[in-house]
Amino acid sequence: MPNFSIGVDLGGTNLRIAAVEEQGSLLEKISLGTRVTLGRDHVINDMCDAVQHLTAKYKDLATLEGIGIGVPGIIDMRTGMIRESPNLPGWADSPVRSEIEKRLGTRVILDNDANVAAFGEKWLGAARNFDDVAMLTLGTGVGGGIVLDGRIWHGMVGMAGEFGHITVEPEGQLCGCGNRGCLEQYASATAVVRMAHEAIANGEAVELAAAASNNPEFSAKAVYNLAIQGDESARRIFRHVGRSLGIVLAALVNSLNLPIYVIGGGVSSAWDAFSPSIFEELRQRSMVYAATAPSDPLSDATGASAKVDPGAGRKTIITRALLGSDAGLYGAARLPMVAR
Amino acid sequence: MPNFSIGVDLGGTNLRIAAVEEQGSLLEKISLGTRVTLGRDHVINDMCDAVQHLTAKYKDLATLEGIGIGVPGIIDMRTGMIRESPNLPGWADSPVRSEIEKRLGTRVILDNDANVAAFGEKWLGAARNFDDVAMLTLGTGVGGGIVLDGRIWHGMVGMAGEFGHITVEPEGQLCGCGNRGCLEQYASATAVVRMAHEAIANGEAVELAAAASNNPEFSAKAVYNLAIQGDESARRIFRHVGRSLGIVLAALVNSLNLPIYVIGGGVSSAWDAFSPSIFEELRQRSMVYAATAPSDPLSDATGASAKVDPGAGRKTIITRALLGSDAGLYGAARLPMVAR
Repeated sequence: MPNFSIGVDLGGTNLRIAAVEEQGSLLEKISLGTRVTLGRDHVINDMCDAVQHLTAKYKDLATLEGIGIGVPGIIDMRTGMIRESPNLPGWADSPVRSEIEKRLGTRVILDNDANVAAFGEKWLGAARNFDDVAMLTLGTGVGGGIVLDGRIWHGMVGMAGEFGHITVEPEGQLCGCGNRGCLEQYASATAVVRMAHEAIANGEAVELAAAASNNPEFSAKAVYNLAIQGDESARRIFRHVGRSLGIVLAALVNSLNLPIYVIGGGVSSAWDAFSPSIFEELRQRSMVYAATAPSDPLSDATGASAKVDPGAGRKTIITRALLGSDAGLYGAARLPMVAR
Repeated sequence: MPNFSIGVDLGGTNLRIAAVEEQGSLLEKISLGTRVTLGRDHVINDMCDAVQHLTAKYKDLATLEGIGIGVPGIIDMRTGMIRESPNLPGWADSPVRSEIEKRLGTRVILDNDANVAAFGEKWLGAARNFDDVAMLTLGTGVGGGIVLDGRIWHGMVGMAGEFGHITVEPEGQLCGCGNRGCLEQYASATAVVRMAHEAIANGEAVELAAAASNNPEFSAKAVYNLAIQGDESARRIFRHVGRSLGIVLAALVNSLNLPIYVIGGGVSSAWDAFSPSIFEELRQRSMVYAATAPSDPLSDATGASAKVDPGAGRKTIITRALLGSDAGLYGAARLPMVAR
């Protein structure tokens, strides 16, 4: 009988639960809203109901290995407590893992959402042939995760992978974290919209201004749509995104010399608009990259080279994520499989 | 019978060879000049003579485990060839390891000099109670090394730890590597002297100008001497050193969340002058640091906290190296001991 596990992507908005077979095939996925306002107990109820439904349905076909949960916050890996989670108010410092374990009677592993996304891309996505990978997730904020020797690198207190708060402009935009010039201020969806409003305020962006005034939900996607239509102001914003990512990726390449770096999250849909600037910065700012760059990094960016001949060429690959919003779900499901 | 090994620190100027017992005590050290201009074969001869002298002398007292050699360049760990070494002209792409192995009839391990310095500090120095450490070596340039789970982290092609070329000022000083604003341009001995000449040229540094004109070998040490005498121009230069180190350390803390980061190399003698700026930047630029900072980071800077209660407090320690120029020698000697 094969094994399976349950992965949970517990977001501030969406709650998704999937049963995944150990070879990586999806058995079933349940998508719910996260009823954050009803409080922690309601959300845990919803989650446990869905997990129990899936467990009951598949337990005669396969053996359950456990439950993995990706959480938007900092996890204390020893105690299974959430240390901090701005998107899950009231969840900090409560014994979430042991509570869920008690409810479900099976092993539960919690991890950070950006970590499990990296783990998912490593298992089944863009980095599936590699043991070492760093992933940046460009969403409302910028998250990150590192996998070394096939395992999530947590660091001393579970805070590794905070790439979104690496300084790219020492005197730059003020960040919510208190620093100036964090990557998150230039490469998140929030940042794209802010930079668009700045360009509009400067009176230099007619098309952006028109798009913003017609659209009460003016978004990074709207800026991208203008960029692919050739609007120079919109294109400039994505060059700024790419330049900022390039500075941080150069620091990571110089420090860790990993074989592959994956860019995921909603903003990665604008890959065509920002990735040329990434490669330009990398070539200038990292001798390590220059010495190991593929001859055509943009073609590698499709993930093609990740499929063929990994490592043999010993090239540094910078590429888009392949699993979209499912990366975290698969990565979470993978947690109990490797923690045997 | 105890074990011992031979460590070699092969620099562009000095060639040092030491016999070290497996508990870390020094049996004997030989210091020579590196006769680079006479060519590779002469230097290898000098090195092998010294190694054979030490081997013959101690082989009846202890069992030789092998030879470790720290080299200022990029090593291909698979082939034992030097890929690139600006300070050892003519050494690149030659089979150095196998040649020395043949000459000495024992196992030889080559590694990068900054890597072995980190490994030495991890074994016997400031990081001796930790399995995970990053070290920055501030000399003529800025080198770096990472130890994870007790082993040197080489990365894909042996180029990990190039902290000196992380960008701290995107539009800053041009670096020899082709990038602008590399850490090396603000935190090396070369950079300290350059910044002093810049201050003199601006007419804002009377004391520095006097010191420079009286001294044909005006050095980073001379700038430091003025700084500790209270000269504001000299102090400003070391604040710039500390700020630049703080930006890079914040990136490393945010990315890797290691328990300890060690600053070594000649410039680290000016620790008092630049370290306060490091901690100031770290607190601003790294939430991870802010969440894990010791209450008095400067007192930890003596290495005291590294001796007591490592990890238990789960604090991020930023500290001076303890072994001085011997770090690389001890680290090199350690290589064959752990590669059993």
